[in-house]
Amino acid sequence: MNRITTLFGIQYPIIQAGMVWCSGWRLAAAVSNAGGLGIIGAGSLHPDNLREHIRKCKAATDKPFAVNFPLFYPQLDEIMHIAVEEGVKIAFTSAGNPKTWTGWLKERGVTVVHVVSSAKFARKCEEAGVDAIVAEGFEAGGHNGREETTTFCLLPAVRQATTLPLIAAGGIATGEGILAARVLGAEGAQVGTRFALTHESSASQAFKDYCFGIGEGDTKLHLRKLSPVRLIKGGFMDAVSKAEDAGASAEELQALLGKGRAKKGIFEGDLEEGELEIGQIASIINHQQSAAEVMQDLVDGYHKALEKMQGGH
Amino acid sequence: MNRITTLFGIQYPIIQAGMVWCSGWRLAAAVSNAGGLGIIGAGSLHPDNLREHIRKCKAATDKPFAVNFPLFYPQLDEIMHIAVEEGVKIAFTSAGNPKTWTGWLKERGVTVVHVVSSAKFARKCEEAGVDAIVAEGFEAGGHNGREETTTFCLLPAVRQATTLPLIAAGGIATGEGILAARVLGAEGAQVGTRFALTHESSASQAFKDYCFGIGEGDTKLHLRKLSPVRLIKGGFMDAVSKAEDAGASAEELQALLGKGRAKKGIFEGDLEEGELEIGQIASIINHQQSAAEVMQDLVDGYHKALEKMQGGH
Repeated sequence: MNRITTLFGIQYPIIQAGMVWCSGWRLAAAVSNAGGLGIIGAGSLHPDNLREHIRKCKAATDKPFAVNFPLFYPQLDEIMHIAVEEGVKIAFTSAGNPKTWTGWLKERGVTVVHVVSSAKFARKCEEAGVDAIVAEGFEAGGHNGREETTTFCLLPAVRQATTLPLIAAGGIATGEGILAARVLGAEGAQVGTRFALTHESSASQAFKDYCFGIGEGDTKLHLRKLSPVRLIKGGFMDAVSKAEDAGASAEELQALLGKGRAKKGIFEGDLEEGELEIGQIASIINHQQSAAEVMQDLVDGYHKALEKMQGGH
Repeated sequence: MNRITTLFGIQYPIIQAGMVWCSGWRLAAAVSNAGGLGIIGAGSLHPDNLREHIRKCKAATDKPFAVNFPLFYPQLDEIMHIAVEEGVKIAFTSAGNPKTWTGWLKERGVTVVHVVSSAKFARKCEEAGVDAIVAEGFEAGGHNGREETTTFCLLPAVRQATTLPLIAAGGIATGEGILAARVLGAEGAQVGTRFALTHESSASQAFKDYCFGIGEGDTKLHLRKLSPVRLIKGGFMDAVSKAEDAGASAEELQALLGKGRAKKGIFEGDLEEGELEIGQIASIINHQQSAAEVMQDLVDGYHKALEKMQGGH
């Protein structure tokens, strides 16, 4: 029991990250049923689909779960209202200003967690009245902070800056990783990549299989002139990399990116034309499990790592 | 006592990184005298100066110390012979192939440690017969691996790949950091940034003061088209960043870099024209101490962090 488990009413301080095209109701419910906090990622759901996913999640688990709202979502107002109507009790907000929605959500009884990539934004979260923060390092997959600060450096900086309950994210896929994050000041861990590659993730099998084969150096941060994203090597990343090396402008990169590429890559499994996103830690993940197996492994691994340290000096 | 302290014959498994324009005999001797392993960084020393630094270091401490050899050093053969002649017992090699010098050094009774940025190179080190490896993450200052893998992701990958004694580097500046690295599989920690900013570091006071003021996001990896280096914001980084955004070629970047910029920045304190290098973790360091004070703080911090974990569950 710590501030994170108490805040969410969950058994283990392990949160499954909200991830586009991976984390629908099936994954979220499986994680929540296994004692963690499952999150439905609204970023890749149309408003009507979000309502459906929330309803299915409620039917599949009586445990707490959350919805993640990327604050650049076009119909943000609409999906916020849907979430409140459907009785969502925990909201993770990301990629925007925590002041915009925190008050509105808290007035409606929703617990608010905001994702930050710097100590400066952690302080803004405190001012905005959020209940907890996720500090996400450079190694994380997908959209990423401009500071490029790694989990190892970000956690102590954020821990110094605020007393808010702190969840670590970026590079965490094992029990050892959760313990290391705790040593660096976190009270809980958000795990993305490992859950993105479970049976319950809605990513295509081709995408999952591709991720099991990647090694270190196979993901890189790109599209800094737009909004930084960690991509996986492949046709689209090659094209982006080449364009960036040649000095492509933000407009040119936007044209290259086009629309619907993440769906094509992650959900439809087009490894050449699609935008493929995963965290660096995928390099140590090489087989598919269920979300419950992952949860068990994280909890067991954490306790084993802790015992090992307790045997040390 | 563990494999790292035994291998080097030191009290604590804490190694001060070899760093251009920072780590001469004064810093190395101070760290060794405080129970860690001090390293003279040969990268910024002319061969005659290296000989002088080794002699002064031997006069200033009777404890073990090492020399770091960047394998792209122009007169590498000459400085290797000098080190052996002067009785250097431990060599850290970096930025090159571990096969080239390991055998030669080991035949002469020198313990060899090689710095890697991937599991693949860790395996090459094992084949080459090195005695231990340093796994250095993306957050580290100065020259950096092409894989951009962070300490949090690199350590478990390298730990899986080899049974060699493993020293973690990149982002470690506190006792908590050392414990977190140990949880992730390391048996020792190499600390650069924090020692670069001590009294005994030969960096200019202007450089040190500038580093105490930087925050997250103030260092960035650049010059990927040459050899990736983590730079600190300022006149030179702005110029590099602008050139890279416009698609500058390797040749153009080389011309912009010119010669002697790191000396100008770090040693002479020219914050506008100089090349400034430090690790991301500088953001949490804001005052100058002696190397012995840093050592004490690292050891105390480690034990405090361990006690805190032992009290946890």
